Amino acid sequence: MSRNPIEDKTAVVGIGWTEITRRSGVSVLSLAAEACLAAIGDAGLTPKDVDGLVEYQANDSVGALELADVLGVPAVNWYTDIRGGGDHAVSSVALAAMAVSSGACDTCVVYRALNGRSGHRFGAAKPSTMGGRDQWVLPYGYMVPPQWFAMWARTHMARYGTTHEQLGAIAVNQRRNATMNPRAVFQKPISMEDYLSSRWINEPFHIYDCTVEVDAACAVVVTSAERAQALRHKPVYIKGFAMGSFGRPSWEQWADMTEMYSKHVGEMLWRRTGLTAKDIDVAEVYDCFTYSMMCQLEDYGFCAKGEGGPFVASGAIALEGEIPVNTHGGLLSEGYIHGLNHSCEAVSQLRGDAGQRQVRGAQTALVTSGAGILGGGIVYHTK
Amino acid sequence: MSRNPIEDKTAVVGIGWTEITRRSGVSVLSLAAEACLAAIGDAGLTPKDVDGLVEYQANDSVGALELADVLGVPAVNWYTDIRGGGDHAVSSVALAAMAVSSGACDTCVVYRALNGRSGHRFGAAKPSTMGGRDQWVLPYGYMVPPQWFAMWARTHMARYGTTHEQLGAIAVNQRRNATMNPRAVFQKPISMEDYLSSRWINEPFHIYDCTVEVDAACAVVVTSAERAQALRHKPVYIKGFAMGSFGRPSWEQWADMTEMYSKHVGEMLWRRTGLTAKDIDVAEVYDCFTYSMMCQLEDYGFCAKGEGGPFVASGAIALEGEIPVNTHGGLLSEGYIHGLNHSCEAVSQLRGDAGQRQVRGAQTALVTSGAGILGGGIVYHTK
Repeated sequence: MSRNPIEDKTAVVGIGWTEITRRSGVSVLSLAAEACLAAIGDAGLTPKDVDGLVEYQANDSVGALELADVLGVPAVNWYTDIRGGGDHAVSSVALAAMAVSSGACDTCVVYRALNGRSGHRFGAAKPSTMGGRDQWVLPYGYMVPPQWFAMWARTHMARYGTTHEQLGAIAVNQRRNATMNPRAVFQKPISMEDYLSSRWINEPFHIYDCTVEVDAACAVVVTSAERAQALRHKPVYIKGFAMGSFGRPSWEQWADMTEMYSKHVGEMLWRRTGLTAKDIDVAEVYDCFTYSMMCQLEDYGFCAKGEGGPFVASGAIALEGEIPVNTHGGLLSEGYIHGLNHSCEAVSQLRGDAGQRQVRGAQTALVTSGAGILGGGIVYHTK
Repeated sequence: MSRNPIEDKTAVVGIGWTEITRRSGVSVLSLAAEACLAAIGDAGLTPKDVDGLVEYQANDSVGALELADVLGVPAVNWYTDIRGGGDHAVSSVALAAMAVSSGACDTCVVYRALNGRSGHRFGAAKPSTMGGRDQWVLPYGYMVPPQWFAMWARTHMARYGTTHEQLGAIAVNQRRNATMNPRAVFQKPISMEDYLSSRWINEPFHIYDCTVEVDAACAVVVTSAERAQALRHKPVYIKGFAMGSFGRPSWEQWADMTEMYSKHVGEMLWRRTGLTAKDIDVAEVYDCFTYSMMCQLEDYGFCAKGEGGPFVASGAIALEGEIPVNTHGGLLSEGYIHGLNHSCEAVSQLRGDAGQRQVRGAQTALVTSGAGILGGGIVYHTK
């Protein structure tokens, strides 16, 4: 079997968003429908052209078949409702690519819709639906993502001397990008002083280290490379993807607590695509917290392990830096549409549609996903 | 794009079950692990050879990553936890085939595990997690699957003169098959008299028209066709699949209430595979109720629309009939492992391993899934 059988067989041909707010005032179904119609329209298609749907959620969204009814999709030939979180921001798009390239459907909408602030909040302490792990950690009050990632960030700080200011450099840079993104929920710039004086959520995380919960939806439309030629926009091809976990049996038991899953995934992605970090023009890297973004930069090879702190503080990740990261402001500043908005931004950048924050000549983009349990990476490019 | 790009790219190389009981006394995690280890062992592999997992559930099972930890799978390179029901008995296997043929993983375990009798019961009246439909039907007390399927069966009886005895012929025949299946939860034969005098669940359904809720798990192992050559059993190739829905917007609003989704899916499956019902040696057809099986026989073209009643009563579906159906006893008599057990039985039959109930010379099998909302069909064959 070839290493990467789906290479360039499919392309993203449409992207769409709702307004990103802290209180939508409408149902998740409304958000999902609005984002999907926007993405389908952006592709120059109508719901009659759609025959596949995929979404991921944590009991907080609307299923694909219910949405298909509302959109007016006449026949659903393939769909998957994925149980799960940010791990699936990339794998959901990859699933669409797999479905289209396998002949299961022709044109597939991928969406994520949530009232993540006014409805189900990820930051709220409640037992997850992920199963047995809870019984071991809840008795210790170890309940919410900022706590988990804080432990890993602490390890990195202790081992490599990573500083608060270095984490802050990520928050400040992404907010700067968000000032150039009319969609972003936070568009007011912050200084390092603002960052350092902001309240703690969970040391070493200030509030600005944490993703911003929002009410929103976004969507991407995937179809075959052939069909993409005939559509409105320059096709953004899906070159390859990888997902995975490393160092099982458990995500609290990695051999190296500063690696999470992403070293394994990064190596697999580069092996499959024949690329390396040097080939990437723009990277949208899953940033549920500043630390998770920094850790992945190391593990995907944008810098060496342990050098993430100096790397992000050097300006390398700025729009004009060697690898612009989270050009829309990321989950920290555009808003937490659970990571699917990273793919929307990557497509904007590769089309050259990103306005003031456009990375000039961007042709190849990396998008990653994942929040501790498992993650994924996908490479988009134009020809 | 070729009509059926995944044709024969993958094969089922292992199958496994737990004991099928009405009260397992163990957790769903235990059941899942036992069935998966059995399937992996049946393939002549160990958990170290597995790098993909997929399962489907309705908040009643164990997720793939938690199971991977317990199995001792060292690296998960792809997985999907599907939200959903019997619709996914086929699409989950298809997803594994898509993942393997797309290069996402090499060897994938598909499982369904549930304490479907002692734990979460599908027959119990409680609001589903499927979303908005509930608000329209719950106020009328239209809550559980026997009610939904009963309405459709009534329509068929009214339009085509289908009789109780014809539905009963399915129940009696499947119980006869189950007497030759040491795994089946019900192995005592029933007569037509037993059927007709049994209690009503929801007219026109007697208790014997309804699937039997059980505690159990089963699993299949999918790998590439190349790798399958080297393994223990004769490979059972995945020739093609289809899933879909027809006549949206809603499953209570089909243009023809006797067709459900399966005419659309059947036509798509035959178009993709180039086969017809005449090419099928053995069929394991989703039988949440007798009626759903009969309806699909019509829609896949084993007989004409409206002739399902006389067809099943003619003996055509018996082991020695023109198209043996649900050779293990089906969900009605082997037990409701939510349809994945249909694929296990198909593989047994194609290997020639089905003992007393073996269909002689079976080389091509159809398995279907679906429970009203959407469904799927998959063709397995040996070479």
